[in-house]
Amino acid sequence: MQDALLTLQKYWTDRGCMVVQPYNTEVGAGTMNPATVMRVLGPEPWHVAYVEPSVRPDDSRYGENPNRLQTHTQFQVILKPDPGNPQELYLGSLQALGIDLDAHDVRFVEDNWQQPAIGAWGLGWEVWLDGMEVTQFTYFQQVVGQNLEPISVELTYGVERILMALQGVTHFKDMAYAEGISYGEVFAQNEYEMSRYYLDDADVETAHTFFKNYTDEAQRMIDARLPVPAWTYVLKSSHAFNILDSRGAVSTTERARSFSLMRRLAREAGALWTERREELGFPLLKDGVATSRVNEIAAAAVTAPNVMQPVQKAESAADLGDDAQAFAFEIGVEEMPPHVVDATLPAVKDAVTTALAATRLEHGDVSVVGTPRRIVVTVPGVSAHEPDAETLAKGPKVAAAYDADGKPTKALEGFARGKGVSVDDVVTAEFDGAEHVAVKQTQTGRGVLEVLGAIVTDVVSGLRSDKNMKWNDPELTFSRPIRWLVALWGTAVVPATAGLLTAGRTTYLQRTAAQPHVDIASADDLVSTLEGAGFLLDIDARRQAVVDGALELARSVGGTIDIEGEAGLVDEITNLVEEPRGVLGTFEERYLDLPEQILTTVMRKHQRYLPVRDESGKLMPYFVTMANGAIDDDVVRAGNESVLRARYEDAAFFWDADLKVGLDDFRKNIDSLTFENRLGSFAQRADRIRDVAQALAGHVELSGDDKTTLTRAGELAKFDLSTQMVVELSSLAGTMAREYALKAGETPAVAEALFEMEKPRSAGDSLPVSTPGALLALADRFDLLTAMFAIGAKPTGSSDPFALRRAALGVVSILRGVPTVATVSVASGLEAAAARLREQGVEVSDEALAAAAEFVEGRFGQQLRDEGVSAPLVAAVAPSAGTPGAAEAYLADIQTLSGDEAFAALVQVTQRITRIVPAGTDASFDASVLTDDAERVVAPLVADLADNSHGSLTEWFAAASGLTDKLNTFFDEVLVMADDEKLKAARLGMLQTVVAKAPAGIDYKELDRALDA
Amino acid sequence: MQDALLTLQKYWTDRGCMVVQPYNTEVGAGTMNPATVMRVLGPEPWHVAYVEPSVRPDDSRYGENPNRLQTHTQFQVILKPDPGNPQELYLGSLQALGIDLDAHDVRFVEDNWQQPAIGAWGLGWEVWLDGMEVTQFTYFQQVVGQNLEPISVELTYGVERILMALQGVTHFKDMAYAEGISYGEVFAQNEYEMSRYYLDDADVETAHTFFKNYTDEAQRMIDARLPVPAWTYVLKSSHAFNILDSRGAVSTTERARSFSLMRRLAREAGALWTERREELGFPLLKDGVATSRVNEIAAAAVTAPNVMQPVQKAESAADLGDDAQAFAFEIGVEEMPPHVVDATLPAVKDAVTTALAATRLEHGDVSVVGTPRRIVVTVPGVSAHEPDAETLAKGPKVAAAYDADGKPTKALEGFARGKGVSVDDVVTAEFDGAEHVAVKQTQTGRGVLEVLGAIVTDVVSGLRSDKNMKWNDPELTFSRPIRWLVALWGTAVVPATAGLLTAGRTTYLQRTAAQPHVDIASADDLVSTLEGAGFLLDIDARRQAVVDGALELARSVGGTIDIEGEAGLVDEITNLVEEPRGVLGTFEERYLDLPEQILTTVMRKHQRYLPVRDESGKLMPYFVTMANGAIDDDVVRAGNESVLRARYEDAAFFWDADLKVGLDDFRKNIDSLTFENRLGSFAQRADRIRDVAQALAGHVELSGDDKTTLTRAGELAKFDLSTQMVVELSSLAGTMAREYALKAGETPAVAEALFEMEKPRSAGDSLPVSTPGALLALADRFDLLTAMFAIGAKPTGSSDPFALRRAALGVVSILRGVPTVATVSVASGLEAAAARLREQGVEVSDEALAAAAEFVEGRFGQQLRDEGVSAPLVAAVAPSAGTPGAAEAYLADIQTLSGDEAFAALVQVTQRITRIVPAGTDASFDASVLTDDAERVVAPLVADLADNSHGSLTEWFAAASGLTDKLNTFFDEVLVMADDEKLKAARLGMLQTVVAKAPAGIDYKELDRALDA
Repeated sequence: MQDALLTLQKYWTDRGCMVVQPYNTEVGAGTMNPATVMRVLGPEPWHVAYVEPSVRPDDSRYGENPNRLQTHTQFQVILKPDPGNPQELYLGSLQALGIDLDAHDVRFVEDNWQQPAIGAWGLGWEVWLDGMEVTQFTYFQQVVGQNLEPISVELTYGVERILMALQGVTHFKDMAYAEGISYGEVFAQNEYEMSRYYLDDADVETAHTFFKNYTDEAQRMIDARLPVPAWTYVLKSSHAFNILDSRGAVSTTERARSFSLMRRLAREAGALWTERREELGFPLLKDGVATSRVNEIAAAAVTAPNVMQPVQKAESAADLGDDAQAFAFEIGVEEMPPHVVDATLPAVKDAVTTALAATRLEHGDVSVVGTPRRIVVTVPGVSAHEPDAETLAKGPKVAAAYDADGKPTKALEGFARGKGVSVDDVVTAEFDGAEHVAVKQTQTGRGVLEVLGAIVTDVVSGLRSDKNMKWNDPELTFSRPIRWLVALWGTAVVPATAGLLTAGRTTYLQRTAAQPHVDIASADDLVSTLEGAGFLLDIDARRQAVVDGALELARSVGGTIDIEGEAGLVDEITNLVEEPRGVLGTFEERYLDLPEQILTTVMRKHQRYLPVRDESGKLMPYFVTMANGAIDDDVVRAGNESVLRARYEDAAFFWDADLKVGLDDFRKNIDSLTFENRLGSFAQRADRIRDVAQALAGHVELSGDDKTTLTRAGELAKFDLSTQMVVELSSLAGTMAREYALKAGETPAVAEALFEMEKPRSAGDSLPVSTPGALLALADRFDLLTAMFAIGAKPTGSSDPFALRRAALGVVSILRGVPTVATVSVASGLEAAAARLREQGVEVSDEALAAAAEFVEGRFGQQLRDEGVSAPLVAAVAPSAGTPGAAEAYLADIQTLSGDEAFAALVQVTQRITRIVPAGTDASFDASVLTDDAERVVAPLVADLADNSHGSLTEWFAAASGLTDKLNTFFDEVLVMADDEKLKAARLGMLQTVVAKAPAGIDYKELDRALDA
Repeated sequence: MQDALLTLQKYWTDRGCMVVQPYNTEVGAGTMNPATVMRVLGPEPWHVAYVEPSVRPDDSRYGENPNRLQTHTQFQVILKPDPGNPQELYLGSLQALGIDLDAHDVRFVEDNWQQPAIGAWGLGWEVWLDGMEVTQFTYFQQVVGQNLEPISVELTYGVERILMALQGVTHFKDMAYAEGISYGEVFAQNEYEMSRYYLDDADVETAHTFFKNYTDEAQRMIDARLPVPAWTYVLKSSHAFNILDSRGAVSTTERARSFSLMRRLAREAGALWTERREELGFPLLKDGVATSRVNEIAAAAVTAPNVMQPVQKAESAADLGDDAQAFAFEIGVEEMPPHVVDATLPAVKDAVTTALAATRLEHGDVSVVGTPRRIVVTVPGVSAHEPDAETLAKGPKVAAAYDADGKPTKALEGFARGKGVSVDDVVTAEFDGAEHVAVKQTQTGRGVLEVLGAIVTDVVSGLRSDKNMKWNDPELTFSRPIRWLVALWGTAVVPATAGLLTAGRTTYLQRTAAQPHVDIASADDLVSTLEGAGFLLDIDARRQAVVDGALELARSVGGTIDIEGEAGLVDEITNLVEEPRGVLGTFEERYLDLPEQILTTVMRKHQRYLPVRDESGKLMPYFVTMANGAIDDDVVRAGNESVLRARYEDAAFFWDADLKVGLDDFRKNIDSLTFENRLGSFAQRADRIRDVAQALAGHVELSGDDKTTLTRAGELAKFDLSTQMVVELSSLAGTMAREYALKAGETPAVAEALFEMEKPRSAGDSLPVSTPGALLALADRFDLLTAMFAIGAKPTGSSDPFALRRAALGVVSILRGVPTVATVSVASGLEAAAARLREQGVEVSDEALAAAAEFVEGRFGQQLRDEGVSAPLVAAVAPSAGTPGAAEAYLADIQTLSGDEAFAALVQVTQRITRIVPAGTDASFDASVLTDDAERVVAPLVADLADNSHGSLTEWFAAASGLTDKLNTFFDEVLVMADDEKLKAARLGMLQTVVAKAPAGIDYKELDRALDA
């Protein structure tokens, strides 16, 4: 291992980097060393490489976990500014480490780094070596809240991982550290003891004091304008925070507050650093420019294996001939994220099509294909020139151009002179219906190269994605750096530049190809050359190759792949490679004992592997990974298998450890997890959820079994938060509760309820099905909302640290989507939660409760609008927003009845009543005082009308529809506002009775408008 | 610079070391990294090399000082166990760095490392490269209070120093750090800001909290049996302490308390580490032995330039012949300290002489010569064999051997049988005056090789010095490792082993010699071979060469060297080299503007250079350094000049900076230096000294000028403690006060008083001459003693952290040695100090004051005994111990009078009186009641006797000597104890009057005994 570190140091110093030492206070990552985080700020160049032992208390495992250490070794490289070929330089370093790039599968997989704690983000990749993440590769965009100019490239190597792979060992302790001495022999005791410290023995009160003192000192140093010591203390506070966190002593609000404080200090320290550097005259800006060392690096790169060659200059436009030729245009990009490939190809097609349409060139259909690394445009038959075009320059009106004698007026003479023609040359023509004099002008058609050159420039400069970045190019902006352009019309290079790039005829093949760059003779050769090199440029074709390849491999072991079920993953894989090459891997059968969800989560989310199943759909111990291009199958298989084994070993480690603990013990252990200082532990919260769910059960119908289930599930609520699996993979909360509950002999219904109570996890996620599950899910969210509003922690415009919006949407979704709990109102849920909180001594004001209710109802309206429900319809059910279940039923009925004119008529007359009858009018009337026939016909019908105020719209429609005409007649014939007060009161009372018997949760004026639209 | 670090890493990893990373918390030195301080404990092997940025807040200079940084870079190597040739391995590393050992002067200069704060010490050297200390080279003996087994070798390279020398730059900022980037560009801002933090801006209260929390956490981790986190917190507390220290916020007592706490924690953490390693089964002890990696290192060493060859086996004893031959014996040692060379040569001579005397070999005179690296013994004419010797075995007495008939008794028979002879073979002989039977026995003489072999073994095994160490040899112990033995008798190797060593015929020349090892053919060739190689083996000859060489060089520039004045330095230099080669260097004349004491202190103490002076004794801008062996004069000169320039630059930097500040400002600034929490700042102490000196002035005669001087010097007392020069070179306190005072225009008398008040600095140092200087010096010490006794900080048997013994000896020396203040008593000084302390609110109990007085008087007696004053004489002046000035006068008189029998007689009669007269007798008498003639003759003489109770012994002798005979007659003829009470009272009163008029500060009984001896 030490040789590897020396090799990397040598490699990067040979390329112009200097070496600094690890920082002499604990840091969580090499990024946090001021040699990165400060030096990337401002205009000064900085090329550095260093080792950084990175301390992450949370990763403490007593040295027992084969792949996880509280201190792991990072090798950190900063290239500032971006030298233009950092991927090639990076790959060279892997070769220096002895990694055969022809054999291994090296991929750049989207990973957008961000560290909100220091206001930093960048775009880039995790670099995979046979499926293992070995390096974080990031183009920094912003650090400590500052936009970076120039952009820095950060490479962070995970040294232990690389070395374990190279040495083929499965436990970090077994790595050779130096000749004759293993990693474990050097570091095992340290791992054990520091794990003990971080997990068990660090004094919490002292660590709190450290945090406070460190942040205070950081602030003082900022005030003293000393960014270096300030940053040191920011780092120390961060480490103190991490210790508290690993000791489980950070509450949710404390976390938010601490992060906010550290973020502010980091920003201020960073801003101060930049100011101080400026005051010092940016000492590293020799000759006032930042490029001096870039040149050295670029020079060094010439000897690197995958050299970035200068793109060719366009040749002169002579001798192009007059025949139409194909246009071929390739934009070379560092690996785009899969979804960007999908979005960019049509966008480019659109841009090129539109641009060509604005020219007078003849051309065939625009075709755009592409891979993560290239966008290839081809247009057949593009004519060599634009034809000349004639236009008419408008002059004065004819009436003004000639005097009564038909002689040219001064106006005409002036016009002709201006156009450089004689008055005899003018013609007349109609402009906007009026006769004017005019002059014919010929617009000379441009040559094809000029036209296409402009298009190339515009299209490249106009490329955008959902997230865009800067690199060494001062002008371009895109999802990932654009590194080369090919643009040919026939055999001619289209002269075009975009930012730093000049279009040429050299394209890039696989980086590992014998000849990684080839020249394209003519436009017709571009696609064929690339395809000949193995690339599948068309997404559909590539996807099919992925599917075919994967299925064939699965079949080779008697299995299959659920291609439909994995559609999203297949799409993603398709855009992770240019030249898909499936590799079948296997894992030990014993891991199949783990819950399927764990196995597939790891395969899909972490590894992008396709799980192989047997005919019955059962998982088999196989997976398919899709490598990119020619590789050594055995090497890549072994590598990927080793990665998966490590991940499964991790999971199995947690699984086995967790199974040794009883559920009730887990449940007790969550008492040591602080939820929020004022609100107590997670155990207290779980107790509240349990009780609130019971209270809500009073609002719904519940079978005996359901009652038993609810009681037991309530007792166990949230127990899995203290399982190691969930601590590690928090996305499995609920899932693991179900699994562990089943293993512990709980009933399937209890297990399911525990699983369902976490649902929905996000917008669009499925909802609980069982009533106990739904009640627990509601209780969970009602408790969260009520508690947070009670302590004043409601969301602000930009900040929602406790995810209360998601909680409110969850409440609404469940109440709308789970029929058995549809009767629960928002108010009753919040009230139940409030009552329980008050029992615990938490003060919940009426105002807070009202605000919470308003917040939830607001989310409901938002959700409807997001679903495309029209504004009047949303308004129509707004009175029911407090009972989303009821509103949902109304909406369903409206959907059903909306084509029915009789319904529309009933609604119309109903809203007419609501407009006339003053508020507060009683829904009763003395029929005996009624005088007119029209009303005497209606009155008994009204009196006999069924009360549907709590009924459905359908029922109401059935019952009241017969009244529509009669009420309309009444309105036609009777003046409601009679002089006789008694008569008037009877009429108004009768009308109000009609409304009072209509479903109460509807705004009929709005419904009328909605039906009208 | 980074290349140098990589080179060193490569060099040491090629030799079997592993590389670890710098520690991720601030450490003051690479030693403190657990990779050293923990790993050297216990039996496990450990070979490691690493870089360590070492933080020393006290060295903060805002990046302005050319040679000093708050963070400097150490390169640390640990070889455990000692591989046997670490010096050769080390020299190889210098060559790897591109240092031409043939050109440069590399020397190993005694430097015994210790770090009491962690209970650690070792013996070794600072390695000089052309006079610059580039590496600390230590054989660790004890760490965290544990004796080490095996011994580790520690090499600590000062990387910046080496690089500055190699690059020939004079400011650290100008070093090339990497290609195209300077050290300053990378680190200058860090130096400035961290200096600001450590010197000006760190929050003192917070740092105190850190210290407390860190030490608490360390203790908790020790209690939890986790030495790794415990050590981390020990390091953090040490850094917190250093911050407090650099902020001037550590009082003397706090320092002592903090060190004590850290030392205890370090010891406990270290003990725990060893325990834990043992519990873990000492994982690195593969095959249960610690030598596995040593072998690798030794194997690697074969390719190193100065390889340690295995010593030869002795040949068989055959064919040696019978002629006497010379014996030559060389003990090869790694560089001994100079004083050890001086002490060891006679010790070896004595040991060999004694050992030979105990044999029956004939031999010539033993001669022993030597250098720092070898002890060479030669003995001419050692015979080839011991002659056989006859002895008589004693039997029974003759009387018991034969019965009355002359026949053998059973006793004789038994004796003869026991000796294996017949009764006829016995003889008779006298033993202790009685006739016994006896048997003649022949003791066969041993061969010379056997005899000399035993002597070689014994002498080598018995070598000892004042400080002894262990190395890789399990049996030997000496000042430095013994690495080879040559032992020849004639041409034969003397077969002998000692520890791991076997005597042979291979000796070691200079390490840089073309052939560093040569075989010696015969004993006669040893000295001639070594001398032929250039070594001057004889100390006197070598010293003369040093003197001659230095003088010749001095003369070449018209100067000379005060050889007598520099005698101690010349002696030291003589034993720093084997082959003295003087090199004359120069320095810029402008440095001569600095006070001479600064220049010579640096030359002598730091560099062992001989200062060159002109005829008038004035310093010239030259120095002579004595290199060892053949070197390139120009290279060595340039190197040494550069070192001296750096040191003088440092001094000039302080000098210039200090001259910008006024004396009164300096004096004010010492208010920020805490002296002791309860006793206030140094300014408060200086105020007290000023006032106490004024109070003491009342006890002496003082001229008007002296009064003025005392007042002003008192106002300025101790001001130089806040000068940068004294902060840096504390040994110049007082010296700099004088210099700066003169520069500031104070009178020479004031300047001198400020200088003298620090005197004497140590036993044997010169005393103040001026009265104001002496008074201030006394006041200084009286204040210290009184204050420390008052707060209970008096010295214990083993501990004297405030150097109170030295202070007391200073008081005594001044009172004895400075006549103008001889009248001051210890009590009056302590009283004055106590009064002043009480004014300040410090409580000073009478007991404390009495204890302080007793302590000072005890020192006085000790001082006299140390000077060789006899015990009775010490006792004779003991009554004057409270006024050492008076005692001193008595002693002078006694010295003068001690040959005079009349004086002895006077003393004798006086002591006779003191024996007779009861205590409490009044010194008056009624002469009229006297009866005898003998008393009536004496009485008037006694009455008229001058009162010399406060006079000198000489005066008393002159006045009272005439009484001697008469008093003796009185005693002969008169019975003092008459029955008549009146008469008896008169006689006793008269006698007491004689005593009362004798000098009061003398114990006459003891004086009599002293004169008698």
